[in-house]
Order: sequence, then structure tokens, then C-alpha cells
Amino acid sequence: MANKPGIPKGTRDFSPSELQKREFIFNTVRGVFQLYGYQQIETPAMENLTTLLGKYGDEGDRLIFRILNSGDFLSAVSEEEISTLGSARLSQKICEKGLRYDLTVPFARYVVQHREEIVFPFRRYQIQPVWRADRPQKGRYREFFQCDADVIGSDSLLNEYELIRIIDDVFEKLNLSVQIKVNNRKVLAGIAEYIGESARITDITVAIDKLEKIGIEAVNDELREKGVSEDAVRKLQPVFELKGPISSRLSGIAGMLAGSETGLQGISELQTLFSFMSEGSLSADVDLDLTLARGLNYYTGAIIEVKAADVAIGSICGGGRYDDLTGIFGLPGVSGVGISFGADRIYDVMEKLNLFEKVTGSPADVLIINFGGDELKYALRLAAMLRAAGIKTAFYPDAAKLKKQMSYADSSNIPVVIIAGEGEIKAGEVTLKIMSTGEQRKVSPGDIPGELSKIGI
Amino acid sequence: MANKPGIPKGTRDFSPSELQKREFIFNTVRGVFQLYGYQQIETPAMENLTTLLGKYGDEGDRLIFRILNSGDFLSAVSEEEISTLGSARLSQKICEKGLRYDLTVPFARYVVQHREEIVFPFRRYQIQPVWRADRPQKGRYREFFQCDADVIGSDSLLNEYELIRIIDDVFEKLNLSVQIKVNNRKVLAGIAEYIGESARITDITVAIDKLEKIGIEAVNDELREKGVSEDAVRKLQPVFELKGPISSRLSGIAGMLAGSETGLQGISELQTLFSFMSEGSLSADVDLDLTLARGLNYYTGAIIEVKAADVAIGSICGGGRYDDLTGIFGLPGVSGVGISFGADRIYDVMEKLNLFEKVTGSPADVLIINFGGDELKYALRLAAMLRAAGIKTAFYPDAAKLKKQMSYADSSNIPVVIIAGEGEIKAGEVTLKIMSTGEQRKVSPGDIPGELSKIGI
Repeated sequence: MANKPGIPKGTRDFSPSELQKREFIFNTVRGVFQLYGYQQIETPAMENLTTLLGKYGDEGDRLIFRILNSGDFLSAVSEEEISTLGSARLSQKICEKGLRYDLTVPFARYVVQHREEIVFPFRRYQIQPVWRADRPQKGRYREFFQCDADVIGSDSLLNEYELIRIIDDVFEKLNLSVQIKVNNRKVLAGIAEYIGESARITDITVAIDKLEKIGIEAVNDELREKGVSEDAVRKLQPVFELKGPISSRLSGIAGMLAGSETGLQGISELQTLFSFMSEGSLSADVDLDLTLARGLNYYTGAIIEVKAADVAIGSICGGGRYDDLTGIFGLPGVSGVGISFGADRIYDVMEKLNLFEKVTGSPADVLIINFGGDELKYALRLAAMLRAAGIKTAFYPDAAKLKKQMSYADSSNIPVVIIAGEGEIKAGEVTLKIMSTGEQRKVSPGDIPGELSKIGI
Repeated sequence: MANKPGIPKGTRDFSPSELQKREFIFNTVRGVFQLYGYQQIETPAMENLTTLLGKYGDEGDRLIFRILNSGDFLSAVSEEEISTLGSARLSQKICEKGLRYDLTVPFARYVVQHREEIVFPFRRYQIQPVWRADRPQKGRYREFFQCDADVIGSDSLLNEYELIRIIDDVFEKLNLSVQIKVNNRKVLAGIAEYIGESARITDITVAIDKLEKIGIEAVNDELREKGVSEDAVRKLQPVFELKGPISSRLSGIAGMLAGSETGLQGISELQTLFSFMSEGSLSADVDLDLTLARGLNYYTGAIIEVKAADVAIGSICGGGRYDDLTGIFGLPGVSGVGISFGADRIYDVMEKLNLFEKVTGSPADVLIINFGGDELKYALRLAAMLRAAGIKTAFYPDAAKLKKQMSYADSSNIPVVIIAGEGEIKAGEVTLKIMSTGEQRKVSPGDIPGELSKIGI
């Protein structure tokens, strides 16, 4: 026997039970997106490299999977170029297309390309795989799914509020306790201004974002390493020490940022957002976190991050506002705000907490035993009747021994077996066997749906 | 303004309304697959080229999109190789992975790789995109979806019957009249044997498969061109002339193939399959077509093809039995039978016949008008209440002029607008406006779900 065939490293097959679990998450997310009026779009797996390159930094460019031009790809390259260009530059000559790296850049491209057809404000969601040539490791894949929702073409903070409600609804429906943290990029800019280090805002946000992970001392050390002055580090400390209810922390930081117009604008936005939230009834714990930055420089307003309350696994959802998503494609001044659910991490958390109890991996609700011969026609009619009633019905294709068919039901986790042998057919009945208890009862065929609904099918 | 960005030729964006239509087809297909106990799997977009190459013929190999190895891909190639190998052979050195070309080969790979976990007979379905570097043209894309269902590990003809019922159920639910044609590869082999041209079976099946399209004379000419003897062509003619009910055509061909064991086996299989079908109540017209071959040499038993009754567009679903799907990956003797729905063509047919009437492209069932100020809180609570009742509710994010918000509802095809201004709130009511008729009525908030269900929402 030959070696077992394999798949590229960092990619996965999804077996039926894995897919049922993943689809449970996707269907929940999708259902909530739809309840809020978000519409699904899909974009192609392949984008032109001109669309992708330069949008994710140098590291991102390296991680984009490139598609070799089809046909005689070398004809576009001179012999000299082949031997002198080197891999990186040669790849530009022999590849025009790359695989989608995230859903945000393709969405920006979509908005610009289809702007005449789109009615703004446009709420879109997108659940598709993305590909990154990252080093594969536990929990990090080269093909993975993103579930994004964005509103584009509206500055209203009600959009941020709505997205937080969406997050809350999704995790409530998934039965997962989470903590939602909120910040605002303008406040971060205000803080950098206040401590006199506006030019180092990126270094500062990257460092303070690690507060929870590495502690105050290490954050301060990193700031000093990056060249932030001792005076600035000292001025920053009170930000870390703010305590109490959200409103008092907001007042506290407002006092410090009194001189920064941007900072005060951020605080006002946070106050409005939290005032919306104080109205509704959110299940999740929502908190202000003035150190939250999410390392992404393109956020310009709200920053949102979600962590599981009971499993330490990092962020399972995040997002924020970006004031100029489509500018890179020639349509400036379109503001957007969006969130992205990390399906793989949510899957891992739910697996750890045993939250997939309803997912059985079973192919069907019932298995109809195949006795062949004269009983076959009766059994086929039975199957058609059950399917017409919406009951997932598997039929054993061969008239194998009863024991073999029962064992198939057992190893497939099919919860109910229906037996219609000669005796049952004469009596106008079937035997319904519940696999988990072994209990058997005779019922008339028309009563099967009712019997099944009694046991929760 | 810069040029509009674009996408690679032969690929598509799916707008919300296009996606709603496509999902209507997928959900129907998926729902029926599940009713018959088929389980979904997914495989990665990228497969190792060793898995893909050599499975689709030379032409297929050329049409596989190759992924450039990441990092310094040239390091694996000597300078001499670079300048002498040429595109085709160099691509083998700098690419290890390719994009999925169909769902059948990845499924075969999956079965072999996961055979220890699979309970046989294994019914699986898979709905995923595939990629082919084909010349794009009307109705032919470089990225398109396949919807496959296969049963593997059972020789029973009940599987063929079940798949035909699945086809019938799907098209009945899509409200699409179809004709299902059935043949058997063994009968084709028997015919080739009977006319004394067994060695030319491929040429013969390719030629007679075109009967409907090009007529008898052209088929005979093609057979002669391929070197089929005049005597054989003459012996073949009665096959084309068989008329009458299926059973008499089967008897007629049985008379001719009396000397071919394979041929008689094929006829017996067809008789069994049609006897199953005479029992049930199929909506579609199912017919025997002794010239049906589907050009695919890997079919070894049943061959199935479906055409739309009212639109000439070629096959919209097809399939058959293959006796050795997994042999190429080192697991011989596993028989399978499967079908594949052509989602793009089904979409085109349904579009042509106006069968997407339920798909409105609307983001939501209702739009709640945003008056801002004191009315905002009331409106937000209303939105939360409607969503909790499962009603897709969009909220206008800005307190824009009423006219602008109404025009948003109109151009988004949102069927109902809910207005809760100062007057309504005081009266404990809302105004519900039905956009299609312009009719307005005052109702209490708790009655909104009931009012909506009256108008079919």
C-alpha cells in the first residue's frame, strides 16, 4: 500500500463533525448579522496582486500566496532577468494574482468597484477563508476563516453601539461568557500628545497594549527603549492608575487631556457610546480599557476587543473604526467601522468548555433497516414519507445482516433505528429503537414524527 | 480619481442580491442532501500538486492554478535549470501546491487519508469553489462552485436510486422542470463489443454522446473518421432506432447484446434501477438514453444527466458510478457513485425563468426611522424587541431627514418602515408603513410581529 496522501502544511480537512461545529458558529454569527440588516457579499479567492500588495506592510506582502501565471509564464521575463532578479522581484514578473489575505482590503476594493450600485450606509458581512504563508503552529493555520461585519458610509456612533450589540448577541447565543473592551484611538493620540510624544504614538500604543500581558514595569522599559523620555513615562503613569466606574475614569482622563482637542473628542465619543450601552441590556461585561490599541494603525476612532471570560486564549473578536478605508483605491473620505470574529479561536474555546453538546456528528435522525426482498418497497416508501416530513433519514443501501446495520447506526451516532420486517409490515407497524437507551416500541408509521419529537428530534 | 480597481478575469464578486439567489440554490441542495443522510465535509483550497497532477489528463494539468512556493523559491533551482527547463517543467520546481480543480479528487484523497475514522458506506456532500485556468467566456468562470454528493463503499443500486430521488427533490423544490437521463457504461461497453469495436469504446461513446446535438449522419461520419469500420457503423444503427417504453427498449438492446456478459450486466442494472423508480413518485421525467456517455471515462456503471426542460443550456447536473475512485491514492476496490449540481447554470436557468421571485435583495424586513434626540432610546428598544422576535431590523444610523431615510428604505427594497416620533411615543404606538402600497397604520409595538406576518414577513 502506498503512503497515505496528505495536504499542505497549515491547511485542514473538515470532517463532518468538525464542520457541524464550525457551521454552528457560522450560522449563529450569520443569523445575528442578518437580524441587524447586514448583507452578505463574497469576493474571489484570487485578487490582483496590485490590489493586495502594499496594504499589509512588508511582512504581509511576504505572506501573500502568489499564483503562478498560467501558460508560458517565462515568456514575460528575459533570460537576464531570470538569472539576476532573485525570488522576490522575479515573483512580480511571473505572478499577477495572489490569494486573499484578509476580508478588509477586498471589501474596500469591492466598495470602490461597485460604488454605483451600493446604497449607503452599506452594512455588509462576509464569511470566507483567507490564506497566509505564515509558519504554521498550534492554532495558527495557512487557511482560515474570517467572519467580518462592517458598516460603511456613516459616522454615527450608533454603528459602534450596534456592532457591540451584535457581539453580545452572538456570544450569548453561543453560550459563551465574554468581556468586551472598548477604547478610542483619539484618546490614545491625546495621551501621546499630553506626554509630549505625539511622534512616537505607534511605539507608545504597541507598548501599552501589552500592559495586561507583561505588567507596568516591562511596559515602561519598552517605552524607554523606544526612546520615550523619562519625563513622558512619568507623565503616563496616572493613566495606568485610573480606577472606579467607567464614568469616573473618563472624567479622570478628560482632566489630563484638557489640552488635546483630539483627546477630548475621543473621550466624548466614548461617553456617547457608553451612554447608549447603559440603556440596553447587554449580557457581556463591557469595560473601558485605555491601554487597548490592537496594534493596528488604521483604526482612527473606536477600538473594540473581546476575550473569553473562562479560557485564556487571547482575543476572539475585535474591530474598530477607520476613517479612510477606500482611499487606497481612489475613493477618499468614506468612513467605516467593523468587527471580525475569530472563528478558529471561538471553536477552540467552545470545545474546551464543552459547548458543542448539541453537535453529534450524526448523518441522520433515523436509520431505516434494509431487509431487501419484499420489505424493500415498504421501507423505501417509509423513507420518502419521513423525508417529506423533514426528518433526516438514512437508508442502509445493502440488505446486510441486522447486526451490521445496527452497528452502523451505533458508530454513526444515529439516534433512532426503524425496523420494518415482515411481521411489522403485516401488523401495519414499525419497530422504533432508541439507540441511547436500547428502548424499543411498536408504532404506526404515521406516528413516527410525533415519537421522534417526543425525544427531541 | 484613480482607475477603478478590478478583479482577475474569469472571477466574480457576489453582490448581496446575487448571493441571496446563489444561497437559495445552495440551501435547497444542502437541505435535500441532509434529508438523505449525507454529511458535509470541506477540504483545503490548496492541495499538493502530487495529489492533483495526472488526474485530469494533460489538458487538466495545464488548467490547474499553481501556487508559487513561498520565500526564496529559486533556491531549489539551479541556474542551469532556470535557463533550460522552460515554463512547464520549471513550474514543478517552484510550485508544490495547486488550487483544487474539482471536488472528486480531493474527496478520494480525503477518503484514503481518513479511512480509519470513516464509517462506510460514507455519504458525503461538499459545496466549495474550484479553480480552472480556462479561457473565460460567457457562463464559464475561473472560479466556480461545485455541489457534489457521493456514496462510497457500497455497490447497491439503491444508491443510484437515492441520488436520482435527490435530484428530483432538489429541482422540485427549486420549481424547475427537468429531464433526467440515465444510461450505463456497461451497456456502452456491450455495444462496442457487439459491433466488434471494443478497442474504440472511447471514440464511440464520445461520438454517440453527440447524437442529440449533431444528428445521426454526423455521428456516423465521426465514427468513420475515427476508424470505426463500415460494418460496425451499420450494426450500430438499430441502437439509435430503438423506440417505445423503457422496458421494451431495454429488451430490444438485450436482444442485441445477448453475446456480451458486460452488456447484459449493464441492462440488468438498468432494469433494477428503473424498477425502483416505477415504485416511487418522481416529479421529473426520467428516461433511458442509450447514447448518454458524459465523455468521462472513469464512469463504470450508471451514468446520469439532467437537463432543464424549458431552457436550452446543456447539462445542469450529472453523475455516475466509478468502481475505483480511491485506487489512485493506494486504496483499491472502493466503489462510489455520485452526482454534481452545476450551480452556475442552475442560477442562469432560474434567472431566465424568473424563479427567484422570493429573493428581494433587501437587507432587512423593517427599517426603523431614526429621529435622534429623545426618540432615539425608544427606537433602539423597539429594534432590540423586533430582533429578539427574529425580525430582521435595520436601524438608520443617522438622524437624517425623514425623506432621506424613506428613500434609503425604498432603494434598499426594505418592505416596511417603522416610524416612532414624539406623537406616536406619547400614544404608545408606532406608525407602520408598507412601502409597496404606501399604506400606513398605527399599531402598538407589541403588535408589529403579528402585523408583519399578515403581509408575509
